[in-house]
Amino acid sequence: MKVAKFGGTSLANAEQIKKVCSIVLADSERKVIVVSAPGKRDSSDTKVTDLLIACAQKHLQTGNADAELEAVVKRFKDIANELGLDDEIVKMIKSDLEERLKLDTSHTGMFMDAMKAAGEDNSAKLVAAYLNSIGEKAEYVSPKKAGLLMSDEFGNAQVLPESYENLKMINSIEGIVIFPGFFGYTKDGKVATFPRGGSDITGSILAAALKADLYENFTDVDAVYAAHPGLVHNPVAVPELTYREMRELSYAGFSVLHEDTLVPVFMAGVPVCIKNTNNPSAPGTKISLTRDYSPNHVVGIASDAGFCCIYVSKFMMNREVGFGRKLLQILEDEGISYEHTPSGIDNISIILKQNQLKAGIEQKIIDRIKDELKVDDVSIDHDLAMIIIVGEGMKNTVGTASRATTALAKASISLEMINQGSSEITMMFAVRENEAHKAVISLYNEFFLNKLYK
Amino acid sequence: MKVAKFGGTSLANAEQIKKVCSIVLADSERKVIVVSAPGKRDSSDTKVTDLLIACAQKHLQTGNADAELEAVVKRFKDIANELGLDDEIVKMIKSDLEERLKLDTSHTGMFMDAMKAAGEDNSAKLVAAYLNSIGEKAEYVSPKKAGLLMSDEFGNAQVLPESYENLKMINSIEGIVIFPGFFGYTKDGKVATFPRGGSDITGSILAAALKADLYENFTDVDAVYAAHPGLVHNPVAVPELTYREMRELSYAGFSVLHEDTLVPVFMAGVPVCIKNTNNPSAPGTKISLTRDYSPNHVVGIASDAGFCCIYVSKFMMNREVGFGRKLLQILEDEGISYEHTPSGIDNISIILKQNQLKAGIEQKIIDRIKDELKVDDVSIDHDLAMIIIVGEGMKNTVGTASRATTALAKASISLEMINQGSSEITMMFAVRENEAHKAVISLYNEFFLNKLYK
Repeated sequence: MKVAKFGGTSLANAEQIKKVCSIVLADSERKVIVVSAPGKRDSSDTKVTDLLIACAQKHLQTGNADAELEAVVKRFKDIANELGLDDEIVKMIKSDLEERLKLDTSHTGMFMDAMKAAGEDNSAKLVAAYLNSIGEKAEYVSPKKAGLLMSDEFGNAQVLPESYENLKMINSIEGIVIFPGFFGYTKDGKVATFPRGGSDITGSILAAALKADLYENFTDVDAVYAAHPGLVHNPVAVPELTYREMRELSYAGFSVLHEDTLVPVFMAGVPVCIKNTNNPSAPGTKISLTRDYSPNHVVGIASDAGFCCIYVSKFMMNREVGFGRKLLQILEDEGISYEHTPSGIDNISIILKQNQLKAGIEQKIIDRIKDELKVDDVSIDHDLAMIIIVGEGMKNTVGTASRATTALAKASISLEMINQGSSEITMMFAVRENEAHKAVISLYNEFFLNKLYK
Repeated sequence: MKVAKFGGTSLANAEQIKKVCSIVLADSERKVIVVSAPGKRDSSDTKVTDLLIACAQKHLQTGNADAELEAVVKRFKDIANELGLDDEIVKMIKSDLEERLKLDTSHTGMFMDAMKAAGEDNSAKLVAAYLNSIGEKAEYVSPKKAGLLMSDEFGNAQVLPESYENLKMINSIEGIVIFPGFFGYTKDGKVATFPRGGSDITGSILAAALKADLYENFTDVDAVYAAHPGLVHNPVAVPELTYREMRELSYAGFSVLHEDTLVPVFMAGVPVCIKNTNNPSAPGTKISLTRDYSPNHVVGIASDAGFCCIYVSKFMMNREVGFGRKLLQILEDEGISYEHTPSGIDNISIILKQNQLKAGIEQKIIDRIKDELKVDDVSIDHDLAMIIIVGEGMKNTVGTASRATTALAKASISLEMINQGSSEITMMFAVRENEAHKAVISLYNEFFLNKLYK
């Protein structure tokens, strides 16, 4: 049995929804379908979720969001009409939206979640209705009915562990299950959503709970690419990845899947396949626990900007028991999370996302490090990018580091930092942000275009 | 004014002491002379300090150490006679040793320190007597008289801060001051020593307290070499180093100076010169706060063995606030100090000296990490060596990493870890211990013999 999730562009209009349904019907294993809200039809279009947010905000501000509500209804109506469905479903959707607007607005986050969730919820109803209209046995299943329980962190909720047991009820449903992504319900029955992009997570939870053979994540690209197509021209597709390769890549800028998506399937050992709704015959990228790999083989190069480095030095630091722990405690006290802490003998660097250092915090941290740790020097270097090279075959490698650093040196890129070996499958470089693009290109050329090694 | 310290081989016999005195007298700035105990005259000889330790231990075990005492006295007597000094000083030294043997033995460490210190103390008296005998104005100054106060951690004592003020009394002494290295006195008047090799530290403290223009450290090598002569044939001498370059090198296996030596002179900004008693015209190696350097210029390559790596992985580790701090807390609880903590996204490695992991501790740490941090995996990799390349010119370098990793790859050396950039002046590689020698040679050849870059 397969769980298949379809993203917003796959549901943007009737033509796309027909594609989705033909994909679903082409494989009888595709039993559970998770859908996003309708996305953009073209680059100038607005996603239904964004229309819903605008509608909710207008309502909160003025008490009247008739025009914004109408815009949402019109999107659904256009799709329904093109799918040949009668106005009954459009009326139902309109009435659903009107009911949501009547909800308690005293807790803004809770109200917003109820509004945002309407995109996925009505999208699922629409797809189920279309499948029924063409004679297929399909059923919209609500997360409430299925017992998808969430924490009450509205807008950033987490699934509650008991959901996995509850969701097994889906197995008893005959025909194709159409399940809305992105949201669930708190224990006292309120809608609560994952972060934006969270339909991926819903699909992963369902695949894990139902012990699916495969979790298919249909999106608008043929595969995961070895580098970002915005940085490298026509990068190669990657046929297979391990969970941890995908996680390293997605953390460092590969946004194919929502960052939290892999946890449930990783825990349950369900493989994932990234596929393209618009080109379903392309093999896509399969993600699972292990794969065959050859030594030194690199699968991807990712980069992420917006980092800074706190550099701390103190003569004889390494003699001071607890120095590192005290330093990390200061950051924890100030609510700062960090990425890496490479250290020398008398110095330590802390790499972190610089958007955490709001006005005042940066100086406060510097002052605390100076005062409490009596350091010789503390400074912050801004605007760094992290470049990572990922591949299971890199463990204990002879030569990968040499190839990478030589490629970067030939491109005259100054390396602020190298970190290899902590993770067995990645090598990390810090460079100035304005050199990151050049760095990715030079590494891509070395590892993917260099004929010597192919 | 210069403080000059002479090591044990420089004081091993009369001929060496004459060399020392001619060096001292050749420069009227050499006002304060710190001496070690007489060292080995040849490779089969025993150092006076070791004779003293044997004497003290025999006394503790049997109450009779007459033969061992005689061996110590004979060393001093031979030197005194060859220097043409009368037996008066030999009698004084013998009587001093006999008095020490009568000291309270209930605190073994305290007794041992009093015995060990006799080597430096009597060596200083002997040198002062010789200088007087040839008509030079010179005075033995006791650490007690000069106020060199120590903590009561016998055998591993630290200088007390007030010593720096006390020691200024030396400025009022006319003529050359001969000061014994290695020991001072606790506040209640007991002899307390630095760790072995601590005469270097005494010299540094005096140079700092007296604001010397230079601290000359006379030893038995012409200079600091770019690599260990036991690993690389005939390595080049390094003319100039910064304090931090020297500290990185000495931490990673360069044993020219005791590890703690540089702190006092660093704090006071007094430059250091390493010179050879047997070749005083050689320029030696100068160590100071800054030096001119060219980009990419490497000054030294050091290696140190006996490390292990605790590897910890947990899916989504980087989301867990405080994970790193909790991990370091476990190590701190168990009294383990660590060197480096390179981290990936979902994993962290801790590099530490493996001799800390006595029986039982290793398993206890693994169990605590498993139980308390709920990790996916924790393992320990043993028998690693750390290789470091040091040079001020390596900051933000383009090309050094490439040259180093390429040299290592050509030598087929597998890199367990690379850490560059945390310290601005070093690049670190972890390799298997049995590949460390080959790694040092390949890096030395690249950075010091490769004509392309010279």
